[in-house]
Amino acid sequence: MAEAIRNLISILDMSVEEIDHLIEVADDIVANHDDYTEICRGKKLATLFFEPSTRTRLSFEAAMLELGGSVLGFSEASSSSAAKGESVSDTVRTVGCYADIIAMRHPKEGAPLVASRRTTVPIINAGDGGHFHPTQTLTDLLTIKRKKGELGNITLGLCGDLQFGRTVHSLIEAMLRYPNVKFVLISPEELRVPEYIREKLREAGAQWCEVESMEEVMPELDVLYMTRVQRERFFNEEDYVRLKDTYILDMEKLENAKPDLTIMHPLPRVNEISVKVDDDPRACYFEQALCGKHIRMALILDLLGIK
Amino acid sequence: MAEAIRNLISILDMSVEEIDHLIEVADDIVANHDDYTEICRGKKLATLFFEPSTRTRLSFEAAMLELGGSVLGFSEASSSSAAKGESVSDTVRTVGCYADIIAMRHPKEGAPLVASRRTTVPIINAGDGGHFHPTQTLTDLLTIKRKKGELGNITLGLCGDLQFGRTVHSLIEAMLRYPNVKFVLISPEELRVPEYIREKLREAGAQWCEVESMEEVMPELDVLYMTRVQRERFFNEEDYVRLKDTYILDMEKLENAKPDLTIMHPLPRVNEISVKVDDDPRACYFEQALCGKHIRMALILDLLGIK
Amino acid sequence: MAEAIRNLISILDMSVEEIDHLIEVADDIVANHDDYTEICRGKKLATLFFEPSTRTRLSFEAAMLELGGSVLGFSEASSSSAAKGESVSDTVRTVGCYADIIAMRHPKEGAPLVASRRTTVPIINAGDGGHFHPTQTLTDLLTIKRKKGELGNITLGLCGDLQFGRTVHSLIEAMLRYPNVKFVLISPEELRVPEYIREKLREAGAQWCEVESMEEVMPELDVLYMTRVQRERFFNEEDYVRLKDTYILDMEKLENAKPDLTIMHPLPRVNEISVKVDDDPRACYFEQALCGKHIRMALILDLLGIK
Repeated sequence: MAEAIRNLISILDMSVEEIDHLIEVADDIVANHDDYTEICRGKKLATLFFEPSTRTRLSFEAAMLELGGSVLGFSEASSSSAAKGESVSDTVRTVGCYADIIAMRHPKEGAPLVASRRTTVPIINAGDGGHFHPTQTLTDLLTIKRKKGELGNITLGLCGDLQFGRTVHSLIEAMLRYPNVKFVLISPEELRVPEYIREKLREAGAQWCEVESMEEVMPELDVLYMTRVQRERFFNEEDYVRLKDTYILDMEKLENAKPDLTIMHPLPRVNEISVKVDDDPRACYFEQALCGKHIRMALILDLLGIK
Repeated sequence: MAEAIRNLISILDMSVEEIDHLIEVADDIVANHDDYTEICRGKKLATLFFEPSTRTRLSFEAAMLELGGSVLGFSEASSSSAAKGESVSDTVRTVGCYADIIAMRHPKEGAPLVASRRTTVPIINAGDGGHFHPTQTLTDLLTIKRKKGELGNITLGLCGDLQFGRTVHSLIEAMLRYPNVKFVLISPEELRVPEYIREKLREAGAQWCEVESMEEVMPELDVLYMTRVQRERFFNEEDYVRLKDTYILDMEKLENAKPDLTIMHPLPRVNEISVKVDDDPRACYFEQALCGKHIRMALILDLLGIK
Repeated sequence: MAEAIRNLISILDMSVEEIDHLIEVADDIVANHDDYTEICRGKKLATLFFEPSTRTRLSFEAAMLELGGSVLGFSEASSSSAAKGESVSDTVRTVGCYADIIAMRHPKEGAPLVASRRTTVPIINAGDGGHFHPTQTLTDLLTIKRKKGELGNITLGLCGDLQFGRTVHSLIEAMLRYPNVKFVLISPEELRVPEYIREKLREAGAQWCEVESMEEVMPELDVLYMTRVQRERFFNEEDYVRLKDTYILDMEKLENAKPDLTIMHPLPRVNEISVKVDDDPRACYFEQALCGKHIRMALILDLLGIK
């Protein structure tokens, strides 16, 4: 217990400087890939996914494998000791005997934080309910940085389900720390950002507006962040059906967009972006997935104290 | 996009020469095993199994691990993003950011083909419904080659469920390209090969016959390929119960067989081959499983452009 | 078949000398860790878990990975060929083509023994129903040896569900082979050790007693082995609720304990040890999990004939 274990539970645990450092390492991983292929040899990542999230899990696993480390874990709670009534604290302390670092996904908000209090190895929150998903936000920041060259001085459109969209809330909070970001919030009235986000925008003195249609604001956007209308967040099926198709991005809506617009999406998408958009050079959501791997590689190195 | 991605969707995608090359590499892997143990270091195989198939999945994973590479993926759809409504194309494009090559199993016929149209890394079809399963056919070809010394000039018996048995259909199609192969189709009348296979046999001018009993043809067979009566292919339980035990291979039925008969089975078996046959030197089905690993090693190397 | 395959099915398969050897290797792994990190390079462990047991599976996987080997397998039966009616013998013979050593967990008692009769690679029983779980017992023995310096000359308390607790029965049988061990069996009358264990204690001429309360015997114990009251072992919910909280270890009950008492638990725990005990230096159950990894590393090396 000489030194405190470093964890990543919320994106706000990281200073702007720490995020800058991660982005630098992520870029160096691309520039000097061969320097990293054996750097985690002998290290083990445990992916403890108490609820399934294939994409996030595979991204973490790919990150660790690409650093030369290895991976163990589980992909859903049914095959874990949790089914026998074990606490997450106990699970994590035991897994700390088997692995050097843990990525934990849990349906219960706060579970990774609770687990982090007794852990003997670094824990990364890989999503806890509707709460935090900091590596998604890091992914988004790296993508914006790579496409725009900087994290300030942009007009950022966020579109779709802004009420329940955890990734949107975290991205807004993270971007509020950079200078001269204008937020354009595009959603139906029923799915606007929650009041606490509005409060944060006000407190920070940010430039922001709320609109109901993409078309009217498209020309001014530098980045358009689309989100999925998640069926499971809705209170009733009727609302879901009525609203899910409202905010679909297609080539027509892109007509007046900037030629260097960056279109992002946390994925998976259902139909909120037409597949025809995929071939447009402005579509960056698959590149974003690649950024997700790179930033997780940087994060693993950082928390393990390597580099 | 300079060079087209190479995939393996159907066995007929491969020329006889390409198959010969794979068989050569598979044999070299056995002869010079140490040359291959680090050859895929740093490469990652993703096993995307939208339906479970433990044997096939483990064979692919063993193949990649034995080449010094690593593995990630999922073993059933419930823990994948497909549950959230994502298309296989999107899954595959994202996974292409995490892995260098993909082995995909899917309950829907054609899914791997659809996925291959947008992929950025090679895709291997690891079985799509009742459609194709090309690595099983490659496995069968390697086994016959190793046991018989060549792929032509043999009498090949195929026994059991020839109507629904995907592996049988593919093997017939593949073997039709080699000279002087005689096909002996052994099945109950209700489970004969479908018309399109009969058509291909005719078109190719092949020697073939259909019989209802093993005993009458046993003496002339060089290879006997047994298949499982799959409960899930039957329309009603009654037919299954009546037919499943009809074509069981035991020591008695082997009495008049050639001393160098090669008995094959794609596995898993239920009871269609008596366990007493396992100790007979003519039983080659476990050796066949080993061939499955070797040919997948050769295939991975080939599609990755290594060797 | 020149040399017999070595397996581990029951703890009693191993002589005292063989166990001593494993413990020595396990200690050497800690003392000279760097000598072991590449020792299994190119070797593959298959974890065939026909029922989930995350902790045991991860412990085996961590062990193999830490030796530089790799891992493949499945974590529950639903994704295995067993669902298609395959015998464990066939599964194991096939997996023997893919892996160098197998750890098998099965809900059916005797399944690993049956499987071991046809295997071509070593099999480790990772738990078969209420039957054996020899690597848990090896874990317990290593923990006692590390904490007490020897395996004889101690007073060993075993507390909780002694009737259904498989780990307790195996530990008693294993400890009966060491000199001067006194067994203190602490349980409600309804959950006493079964008659065959009592018989073994008598036959061995061991010192032992049965009591109903922890407090009266606490002062004399060198080791206190707590066990979980497993809901699934009870015949009715009522009995479970009445008894599950009876034998909870807390700081108060520890008041008269020896200052160097070793508190053990096979984990997972539900509430049979208060979390307040975790910070007491006498709590050794997480250390025990670490011992589990070390002894499995030693066992894998031994069965593979390395070292």
